[in-house]
Amino acid sequence: MDRRSFLKNSALGGSAVAATALAAPAYAQGKRTLTMVTSWGRGLAGVFDAAQKCADNINAITDGSLTIDVKAAGELVGAFEVFDAVTAGQADMYHAADYYFVNQHPGFAFFTGVPFGMTATELNNWYYHGNGQAMHDKLGEIFGLKSFLGGNTGSQAGGWFAKEIKGPEDFNGLKFRMPGLGGKALGYMGASVQNLPGAEVYQALASGAIDGTEWIGPWADEKAGFQEITKFYYTAGFHEPSAGLSLVTNREVFESLTPAQQGAIEIAAGHANVWNLSQFLMNNGAALERLKAGGVNVLEFPPSVWDAMGAASQQVYDEFMGDELFKEIYDDYVGSMKASSGWLTQSISAYRNQRDRVLG
Amino acid sequence: MDRRSFLKNSALGGSAVAATALAAPAYAQGKRTLTMVTSWGRGLAGVFDAAQKCADNINAITDGSLTIDVKAAGELVGAFEVFDAVTAGQADMYHAADYYFVNQHPGFAFFTGVPFGMTATELNNWYYHGNGQAMHDKLGEIFGLKSFLGGNTGSQAGGWFAKEIKGPEDFNGLKFRMPGLGGKALGYMGASVQNLPGAEVYQALASGAIDGTEWIGPWADEKAGFQEITKFYYTAGFHEPSAGLSLVTNREVFESLTPAQQGAIEIAAGHANVWNLSQFLMNNGAALERLKAGGVNVLEFPPSVWDAMGAASQQVYDEFMGDELFKEIYDDYVGSMKASSGWLTQSISAYRNQRDRVLG
Repeated sequence: MDRRSFLKNSALGGSAVAATALAAPAYAQGKRTLTMVTSWGRGLAGVFDAAQKCADNINAITDGSLTIDVKAAGELVGAFEVFDAVTAGQADMYHAADYYFVNQHPGFAFFTGVPFGMTATELNNWYYHGNGQAMHDKLGEIFGLKSFLGGNTGSQAGGWFAKEIKGPEDFNGLKFRMPGLGGKALGYMGASVQNLPGAEVYQALASGAIDGTEWIGPWADEKAGFQEITKFYYTAGFHEPSAGLSLVTNREVFESLTPAQQGAIEIAAGHANVWNLSQFLMNNGAALERLKAGGVNVLEFPPSVWDAMGAASQQVYDEFMGDELFKEIYDDYVGSMKASSGWLTQSISAYRNQRDRVLG
Repeated sequence: MDRRSFLKNSALGGSAVAATALAAPAYAQGKRTLTMVTSWGRGLAGVFDAAQKCADNINAITDGSLTIDVKAAGELVGAFEVFDAVTAGQADMYHAADYYFVNQHPGFAFFTGVPFGMTATELNNWYYHGNGQAMHDKLGEIFGLKSFLGGNTGSQAGGWFAKEIKGPEDFNGLKFRMPGLGGKALGYMGASVQNLPGAEVYQALASGAIDGTEWIGPWADEKAGFQEITKFYYTAGFHEPSAGLSLVTNREVFESLTPAQQGAIEIAAGHANVWNLSQFLMNNGAALERLKAGGVNVLEFPPSVWDAMGAASQQVYDEFMGDELFKEIYDDYVGSMKASSGWLTQSISAYRNQRDRVLG
């Protein structure tokens, strides 16, 4: 699918055009309240926290000129309807994982996480000092959006399995919950991939409707209670080596703000990005230890499985390469990842290996 | 040395007390200009950029209520006099690497980087979701300061050597430039450690006054031109696995600000922190490739050297453990590092290893 046919056939493409055609609203010069819709249940650890932090930051630094009214999933629109709500101007901004919107454009996947793609550190490198922000903007402009990174869960765990995974053949016929491009890749490996909303995953796992699931990482996974049902937990996953969260505004709304208000949104999102990543990473460490202590087998996939995941991921990318903008983002993304990863391997990774060895 | 005797004997302890004893100035309610002194030469890549980004962020989001006047090293006070200037109220804030001020209190080292300590990711975990910010505040209160992280160079390189390092004995008698606790550790390994200001390092290396030097990382090192003189470059170093940069305000000045202005400084610093780290990491990748292409031998220290560095670093920590506050910070810091590093190893590191292997 190329971008033009995609846009022509997309209801969202239509709504973006409609939104742009509206006359710019005459906003009051004084205090404004902006509505933020989110893909998160109210209070959901980590992800809702990131949305709330963005809002709190904006409220704090705009000194009352902006007040962000945060809506949890379902309070104004459903979890996956936030994109439509903001492109149509029903809400002013959303906080979500942009890979939920790959049906609007597959390029959105890069701003959350893609198979064999960037870690959170690498995503920040690309976003702030490569072309990441520019590519996010280029995608957003199609839909009348202005986007920022506003959180990150860090590398997502490989997931929960009822039995040990010894080779790629163990995915054949496996009923597994995994969204996004990673899920498509598991499909190429023979899995029967289910895309269940978060609220239904525990019950599906408990009833045997699915054999296993990925979710987020130890902190969130422990809260979800998957360790009560399955005992094989794979820490490193191929599917979302980063899971960036986005704070995205309706572009007309954004352009109607003062420069100070625009700056506040950008800088608030950047602070929430580092704050939220460290929240997940700090809490994951302690949760992983508790899971181990509770009898969970903490494992890594064998190399043969990683190889099969690599081949399947390439098949997924090949599906989308006909789309001009997808390919442009992919090429830039992969180029940036290669450009920054050598130093990371030879400095931070090499150091951590030696530190772990020396400190024991 | 314990904290009380340290304070009693310190000229700075005295000036902090004096600053606190002053009547709170009657600040105008309207627009204010705050002076930021820095330890950086004007325009110095990366580090001055971080200071300027903090200032630009504050200027942008406070909508004219605050204007930050950034002074390079030497413009108002010298590079290492910024701490005194802010404790004494001569300047309103500084941007520097807090380990420059270990003579004021050795605990400041933790907020830049310490031997076998935290990477930038781990430092953020501790700072934002452990007790890092609280410990920074506890130290700062002694001197009438309110501190934030406002940048990070990432892991600093092991440094430049005239010949290959084959074992710990190669450090015996080596004239090497390295500041901070790492330099003290090299001293225990028999090196003759020099603490030269940045501006003098190139000439000292060229003249043979020193045999080698560490500096920052490929991007900054290449600009400094060390590859013109020495050809053995060690990427991973033990001495500064993170180099956090701090934005530190005079506490009375900070407390005289409105809540929105205080929030602006905190959030501006957090954004600059992630922005600056990714600036270094992105640029280091490209610079490392250029150094390799230019004939530099890019190496890692052998395990025997890492072992000796580990033992020497422990000797350095032991020197300071008599100080109650140093020990309190050390214990908390090491506890946090251990709590967050397991997940990082089993998720991000394991993933990157497999990605490098699969993608080739």
